[in-house]
Amino acid sequence: VTEQRAMMTLYGDLRSGNTLKVKWTADLLGVPYTVVEVDAFMSATRQPEYLAKFPMGQAPGIELPDGRCLAQSNAICRYLANGTDLLPAHPFQAAKVDEWLFWEQYSHEPYVAVLYTAVAYRGVALSERDSHRVQKGEQALDLMETWLSARDFFVADRFTIADIALFAYTRFAERAGFDMKKRPHVEGWLQRCGRKIGA
Amino acid sequence: VTEQRAMMTLYGDLRSGNTLKVKWTADLLGVPYTVVEVDAFMSATRQPEYLAKFPMGQAPGIELPDGRCLAQSNAICRYLANGTDLLPAHPFQAAKVDEWLFWEQYSHEPYVAVLYTAVAYRGVALSERDSHRVQKGEQALDLMETWLSARDFFVADRFTIADIALFAYTRFAERAGFDMKKRPHVEGWLQRCGRKIGA
Repeated sequence: VTEQRAMMTLYGDLRSGNTLKVKWTADLLGVPYTVVEVDAFMSATRQPEYLAKFPMGQAPGIELPDGRCLAQSNAICRYLANGTDLLPAHPFQAAKVDEWLFWEQYSHEPYVAVLYTAVAYRGVALSERDSHRVQKGEQALDLMETWLSARDFFVADRFTIADIALFAYTRFAERAGFDMKKRPHVEGWLQRCGRKIGA
Repeated sequence: VTEQRAMMTLYGDLRSGNTLKVKWTADLLGVPYTVVEVDAFMSATRQPEYLAKFPMGQAPGIELPDGRCLAQSNAICRYLANGTDLLPAHPFQAAKVDEWLFWEQYSHEPYVAVLYTAVAYRGVALSERDSHRVQKGEQALDLMETWLSARDFFVADRFTIADIALFAYTRFAERAGFDMKKRPHVEGWLQRCGRKIGA
């Protein structure tokens, strides 16, 4: 049992795509874990006990048996996937996975995920969505459509944590008000990922 | 010469902290490169020739001698630093570097860097800064102050690409309108990083 394969505690909200990324990665790799539910809508991540483990005050986070903690969904997925089929061993291919992971957090999640949360959980009408976020979300989904028109998965012709990270909120893009019928390659990829993940 | 040590082309804007992260990392590691200036303010990253290399349409990006391209500043730094003193070899320590890299792009750069650009390059008065970005930037700098009150560098008691990534825009935080006099530990860390980087 290497340290990435020991029982861990997953702190997070299972309605959150960021938390689900970690759960799916752990499930696919057979990493055992227990879940401690953290309700992000109730400021649970800003409480002193949580901040003592995760100073950034965000979920998800994992705690190893010896008490070491790690936050940031994509950093956790990368840590768990290191040395497995979900992250290429070749440095440049791994870097291409990183490229999509950073893009997801900077150019996708702040638009697609934030709009999904607004619509699904905060009662924002589609017509009242933040127009800047809509525009940026459209750009992100357009880039995915172009990229996936020439390949089945994002990197190295195989399913990796780049796909897991991007699947987490792209599957909710239609609910967030984006037209996915005009993005058939993204739709096909969502189905391929769904079968891998079982979601 | 491993592939990370071959002559590369760096596409970027040397006024941009994101581009400087890559330049500094290459300089510290002795990776040879030539620079192709990309003026982000002139939409250079949205031109077809640029998009053919870097579909995400962002700078910086690097091109290897065989034509392979990689974007996202923190992904590039991680790729260059892999196997060197700038990125710990231990998987958990490397994951803690990743944690800060993702935090930087999600919770620091969109506030501190965007406000710096607004003030320094777009003529926005300090009193007219976006209040949401100010609040989030204050939170990010407060977290850095607390973290650095107990250590000299962000991860593993040594200078890593986590420090390089966070240095890039934190050094402009005062120019962006943040009060750094009340953050002496960040100021001390900026000086330590500046000596390492020569910036």
